[in-house]
Amino acid sequence: MSILVVGSVALDDVETPFGAVKGALGGSAVHFSAAASLFGPVQVVGVVGEDYPLEELDFLRERDVDLSGVETARGDSFRWAGRYSHELGAPETLETHLGVFADFRPRIPPAFRAPEILFLGNIDPELQLQVLDQVERPPLVACDTMNFWIEGSREPLMQLLSRVDVVMVNEGEVRQLADEPNLVRAARWILERGPRRVVVKKGEHGALMLDDGGVFFVPGYPLEEVFDPTGAGDAFAGGFLGALAGGELEHPGRLRRAMVLGSVTGSLAVEEFSVSRLARTERAEVAARAREFRRMTHFELEEARPTAAAGGEQAHD
Amino acid sequence: MSILVVGSVALDDVETPFGAVKGALGGSAVHFSAAASLFGPVQVVGVVGEDYPLEELDFLRERDVDLSGVETARGDSFRWAGRYSHELGAPETLETHLGVFADFRPRIPPAFRAPEILFLGNIDPELQLQVLDQVERPPLVACDTMNFWIEGSREPLMQLLSRVDVVMVNEGEVRQLADEPNLVRAARWILERGPRRVVVKKGEHGALMLDDGGVFFVPGYPLEEVFDPTGAGDAFAGGFLGALAGGELEHPGRLRRAMVLGSVTGSLAVEEFSVSRLARTERAEVAARAREFRRMTHFELEEARPTAAAGGEQAHD
Repeated sequence: MSILVVGSVALDDVETPFGAVKGALGGSAVHFSAAASLFGPVQVVGVVGEDYPLEELDFLRERDVDLSGVETARGDSFRWAGRYSHELGAPETLETHLGVFADFRPRIPPAFRAPEILFLGNIDPELQLQVLDQVERPPLVACDTMNFWIEGSREPLMQLLSRVDVVMVNEGEVRQLADEPNLVRAARWILERGPRRVVVKKGEHGALMLDDGGVFFVPGYPLEEVFDPTGAGDAFAGGFLGALAGGELEHPGRLRRAMVLGSVTGSLAVEEFSVSRLARTERAEVAARAREFRRMTHFELEEARPTAAAGGEQAHD
Repeated sequence: MSILVVGSVALDDVETPFGAVKGALGGSAVHFSAAASLFGPVQVVGVVGEDYPLEELDFLRERDVDLSGVETARGDSFRWAGRYSHELGAPETLETHLGVFADFRPRIPPAFRAPEILFLGNIDPELQLQVLDQVERPPLVACDTMNFWIEGSREPLMQLLSRVDVVMVNEGEVRQLADEPNLVRAARWILERGPRRVVVKKGEHGALMLDDGGVFFVPGYPLEEVFDPTGAGDAFAGGFLGALAGGELEHPGRLRRAMVLGSVTGSLAVEEFSVSRLARTERAEVAARAREFRRMTHFELEEARPTAAAGGEQAHD
């Protein structure tokens, strides 16, 4: 049992106010795997061109990521070039070169067809559906999508929604998908179309999980340095699903803990360019940052008694 | 011992996608008092014109708000007119008519000169300093400000910072004040100028408290209906300081609880136009929503054991 991710494996040119990289490891499947592999085994399906520096993915192999589903096709790898302004909000896309990704038709190897968890990264919903058709229905299926598909591929996207358990999208995408500015109502609209759970990624503002049990909220980690926001959403998804794997997938307490661990890996991801930070992350660091999230959010509603002032819940750092 | 607030007492014309009101109760001192009075006594210093419907503030008097420091001057009341778009973000100001507020010089009545907590609402920092000069140094002084003063009154604002304990501003104002896009570094810049604590209001994204103990984060309440965001920041400040009053002002647990109660009153405030929602709020409702915040944010990092699945922290609604 493993996590299977299907998504892009790309090379990114990224400019931020702090520097620039060219041809850095990127793509949803790479960012996702870099995070999820901190928790357990991952299987990847994707496509690269003959120019892809596959050896740079060795850090994933060392962490039990099976890349045998990444086929090398004749042609160039998918390349994206983007630039972030000082505010590090949504990037300006400078160039998108699909290369071999334009003809990508996911083929799930036999050994990958019974995952515990399937993550359908942000690709054409028609392809996401093709993946679902090739696997035994996994206990948990999660998907991402984006404005491009919401605008142009509504029908297959609605089909997809009816076949997944968790939709993991950003704030703007939830609103756009439901055509509803109120986040709670937009999420409810999505829940009515099939998924049991919507995870709304809000970048530096954290993330929300909405389901019939209510709402759970995890903040973003207040970083002093954000180097490169590229892939933060996929790193969040990787941490979330990685932490869920290997146990009860519907346990409210485990789901909450998984949200926190998603915010942990998402916040680590943005500290350096590409996957550099996650590549050198140790599990102990993940646990330490998770404890910081706990300190950052924990409170008691009972009025503390003056006599208790010298002990108990004093420090909040 | 009481909370003293000095700020504007205004009449607002507000348009939102859901309706419009004209001449509604507004101003920082009014929104603040409507929230703080849910917790204990409040004293208000401000100015109104002869046209102000003071009787509409009776709900505050009934809650132990002393309005004897609100003088009636010859002329028109301060009026603000604004319009919110569908996204309910920052409003477009349609008109600002200062009226008697243009010549406002706060005079603190003798009975108001020894408050436990002083809240300096968003007015000219020169006037905020004049208030400080008229009172015994209260155990806790908090202030708000805005872009207008940050741009045009930097010197008195810096003096003010050196004399207050808590700065309560929104996200953009923190960044503008420190001229630093990173929120954590911007808050640290402010802390180095005197205040012990910065509270950053992020609207629907919640609020952060930063001090030498670290960072505490409280989310916004995920409302299905937001009618009128006007005064939400002052309602947050009122709930925060109201909950702090009457106990240890530096107790980390009490400060965290106060942040939650600020988010509670801020979230209630926006559910109806003007102060209508807070005017009819009962203390039991405040407590109930605070418990919802607890349910919305609580998590445990220890992996839940499968055998515990039927009990304990199960529901997350």
